[in-house]
Amino acid sequence: MAAKIRVTVWNEFRHEKTHEAVIKVYPEGIHKVIAGFLGANPDIVTRTATLDEPEHGLTTEVLANTDVLIWWGHMAHHEVKDEIVDRVQQRVLNGMGLIVLHSGHFSKIFRRMMGTSCSLRWREVGERERVWAIDVAHPIAEGLGEYFEIPHVEMYGERFDIPQPDELVFISWYQGGEVFRSGCCWHRGKGKVFYFSSGHETLPIYYQKEVQQVITNGVRWAAPVNGPYSDMSRCPMVPAIEEFEVEK
Amino acid sequence: MAAKIRVTVWNEFRHEKTHEAVIKVYPEGIHKVIAGFLGANPDIVTRTATLDEPEHGLTTEVLANTDVLIWWGHMAHHEVKDEIVDRVQQRVLNGMGLIVLHSGHFSKIFRRMMGTSCSLRWREVGERERVWAIDVAHPIAEGLGEYFEIPHVEMYGERFDIPQPDELVFISWYQGGEVFRSGCCWHRGKGKVFYFSSGHETLPIYYQKEVQQVITNGVRWAAPVNGPYSDMSRCPMVPAIEEFEVEK
Amino acid sequence: MAAKIRVTVWNEFRHEKTHEAVIKVYPEGIHKVIAGFLGANPDIVTRTATLDEPEHGLTTEVLANTDVLIWWGHMAHHEVKDEIVDRVQQRVLNGMGLIVLHSGHFSKIFRRMMGTSCSLRWREVGERERVWAIDVAHPIAEGLGEYFEIPHVEMYGERFDIPQPDELVFISWYQGGEVFRSGCCWHRGKGKVFYFSSGHETLPIYYQKEVQQVITNGVRWAAPVNGPYSDMSRCPMVPAIEEFEVEK
Amino acid sequence: MAAKIRVTVWNEFRHEKTHEAVIKVYPEGIHKVIAGFLGANPDIVTRTATLDEPEHGLTTEVLANTDVLIWWGHMAHHEVKDEIVDRVQQRVLNGMGLIVLHSGHFSKIFRRMMGTSCSLRWREVGERERVWAIDVAHPIAEGLGEYFEIPHVEMYGERFDIPQPDELVFISWYQGGEVFRSGCCWHRGKGKVFYFSSGHETLPIYYQKEVQQVITNGVRWAAPVNGPYSDMSRCPMVPAIEEFEVEK
Repeated sequence: MAAKIRVTVWNEFRHEKTHEAVIKVYPEGIHKVIAGFLGANPDIVTRTATLDEPEHGLTTEVLANTDVLIWWGHMAHHEVKDEIVDRVQQRVLNGMGLIVLHSGHFSKIFRRMMGTSCSLRWREVGERERVWAIDVAHPIAEGLGEYFEIPHVEMYGERFDIPQPDELVFISWYQGGEVFRSGCCWHRGKGKVFYFSSGHETLPIYYQKEVQQVITNGVRWAAPVNGPYSDMSRCPMVPAIEEFEVEK
Repeated sequence: MAAKIRVTVWNEFRHEKTHEAVIKVYPEGIHKVIAGFLGANPDIVTRTATLDEPEHGLTTEVLANTDVLIWWGHMAHHEVKDEIVDRVQQRVLNGMGLIVLHSGHFSKIFRRMMGTSCSLRWREVGERERVWAIDVAHPIAEGLGEYFEIPHVEMYGERFDIPQPDELVFISWYQGGEVFRSGCCWHRGKGKVFYFSSGHETLPIYYQKEVQQVITNGVRWAAPVNGPYSDMSRCPMVPAIEEFEVEK
Repeated sequence: MAAKIRVTVWNEFRHEKTHEAVIKVYPEGIHKVIAGFLGANPDIVTRTATLDEPEHGLTTEVLANTDVLIWWGHMAHHEVKDEIVDRVQQRVLNGMGLIVLHSGHFSKIFRRMMGTSCSLRWREVGERERVWAIDVAHPIAEGLGEYFEIPHVEMYGERFDIPQPDELVFISWYQGGEVFRSGCCWHRGKGKVFYFSSGHETLPIYYQKEVQQVITNGVRWAAPVNGPYSDMSRCPMVPAIEEFEVEK
Repeated sequence: MAAKIRVTVWNEFRHEKTHEAVIKVYPEGIHKVIAGFLGANPDIVTRTATLDEPEHGLTTEVLANTDVLIWWGHMAHHEVKDEIVDRVQQRVLNGMGLIVLHSGHFSKIFRRMMGTSCSLRWREVGERERVWAIDVAHPIAEGLGEYFEIPHVEMYGERFDIPQPDELVFISWYQGGEVFRSGCCWHRGKGKVFYFSSGHETLPIYYQKEVQQVITNGVRWAAPVNGPYSDMSRCPMVPAIEEFEVEK
């Protein structure tokens, strides 16, 4: 039997302690809800980590035993230490999957992996979103319909300052006039990155069936491939395939 | 337990009947060798089909029960009936995977899926090829090293007239001075297409372990996603999300 | 001084002869309006061609002297002869730019170049469209704002059955709940293809300044590059860079 | 008449002062040779900047007046100040083109823009390189043949740890058994990035006609588009297209 996919769900875990509106929806933290629905799958095993743990809960050992890291951050992106960002980046390049959710677009690790500002437009009036499946051959579209609706969301709109996705899985429509590349995939080194924008700390979006399906599919897609290279940062001098004369 | 991936290996199956050099290497046909190593995997079940069978062995029913179609053709591309090409194309757009091997680059179905001439340079002197893994996060790189060598090949060189691959998995080096995008992936409709150039009818390339690994990985990658749409060719008129006034 | 870009604007030119609603907006045909605003640029020279001319106006000589072909078709896609489609495809692969407008998504030539069904959703209620600029480094975004609006349109919605664009320039939002990849670029052979969805035969969309800017930018982007190859369909046997021994 | 493209050629300019083998080939520095052949074009005007100037010669004012920045670095990547890297990155995202040459693959600015390690294989024996044109519709292929040869080079080989290029223009073949994606394009924010690997400090590669053509084409391709957005890092809250009721 194949080994289980080991997921670490990381959460800043701040507004769940202080903001009534957040506590009401995610009383134990968003990470617990995400770890909960993921862990219900027989092929996935989860743990969690949060900002205020030592090394933000992302020790070398935790990362070495993580196949896919899920990232939720919002208010305290700047408190994440650069050395931990370096460490996560190296681990992604060496094969770990990274799934960045919603306000994580402005996290240090996502901006590091993208090389761009990752800015966007936004509006918080609780409008309706329709998530359209675009790349219907993609494993992240598994089990979904042509589109699904989320009744109340924070709007994230274009232009989203990201590199062109290697695979564009979803585009969202918003009632108020915007569109958004809401499900985007990139390969980086041996690792894969998936950004999924739908979600919010004061709305029950992570309890919605389709959203859970997308994130579960994302985990399976981002799980590491057992391929070449153990360390992508090597820059080796190598011999030629066979000796030859160079005439100058 | 997940359903097995149903593979149909299609072969023109002509030169195995008439050319001594081919018969020596593939006495029962290339399709038998490919079906053999694929079928040895517990998650794959195979059947074969050939040009001279009625409807080239690709009846509507066979295609409806095929998850991934493997295509080998060489001398008789022009004998494949256009109506069967139409049928295969529709089935790919509706989700079936398609893996095209070596001289299949000039098959009607590959040119149909690509929209380009699919021409290339070639040379047949038995030189050495090195297949370099480029997209090392890709499932088709699973289990492979940084490169592998094939001791004697027919050279296929750039410029290969294909659309830019959605995912470029391998680039080959040839002793005689050429390079080639030898492992290329595209999404088309709900289906996936993988072209892999290494292989030849008079060389034992399909017995080589790494080549078998690539094709097996390709089958798993190209297997259909159970996502939206049952027929990609529909062009439906649809109602608005809700009624609104249009002022003119 | 650089040579002018030679544009041929092709129009089916049928509904302008029979439908009152079309005649009112485009009395001389859509091709005349497009050729008019393009020809007003000092670097562009235009001619037109229509379905009912001999060889649909697309003789070998006309195509040989066309740098960019603009395609409008709607009611009579099936009347375009396959041999002319073959001819246009070869000319695109050998360097001519192709710009396909609106209902041209279902033209034989666009489906040929794409390899997919090119189907989509649609609705004709005159709703509002917002065209968002996504790839803002792209020459086709030159001179445009973050988005522009078209007050009344026919809706074209996802999922649009096309290959993933090499460059995705625009995504449209529609009042009624849909999104659309409305400005898409592909390289095919030595040629470039641009599809732009906004436009309609009974609406004055081709008189709108931003739409004219997009099509003009598209012409400049799609103009041929004076690079390698005169005929992409050659498949030459080539010698090695130098002689070598092959040990078997 | 169109404004000229303002190019700043940046050079670390260290080994030209200390290494005999470099001084012999580039006595005034590589930047002078590059600025020389670029400035000979009527549409390009150049200046230079070097590591040991104040702010590395890359003041806010210089960058504001640079359309395309060319980057050569090798021995002293670590001496480039992070605040200057930040500044260059912002300027690229806001539209400036960036062309990175050869050993610049390990520069801070290239790694920042890519988000990956940018490592590769290498060998310095003076072997032969063949640069094959792959994307022959691309403006950077203008004026080139199907391939060109450089008689003696330092080998740079795959796997090159970069994001999949948005446009892959060249792939190189090396005598010693390697391949390399030697001409790669990316869009980042409003800016464009072109990496071209051929070149070396002790070899007269930048005097070769085809190499000069590639870099000149690169400058024209990377020149900014006058499109939307003046600052890509904004993340504005925006109003809806019109008021609507949200029922909760």
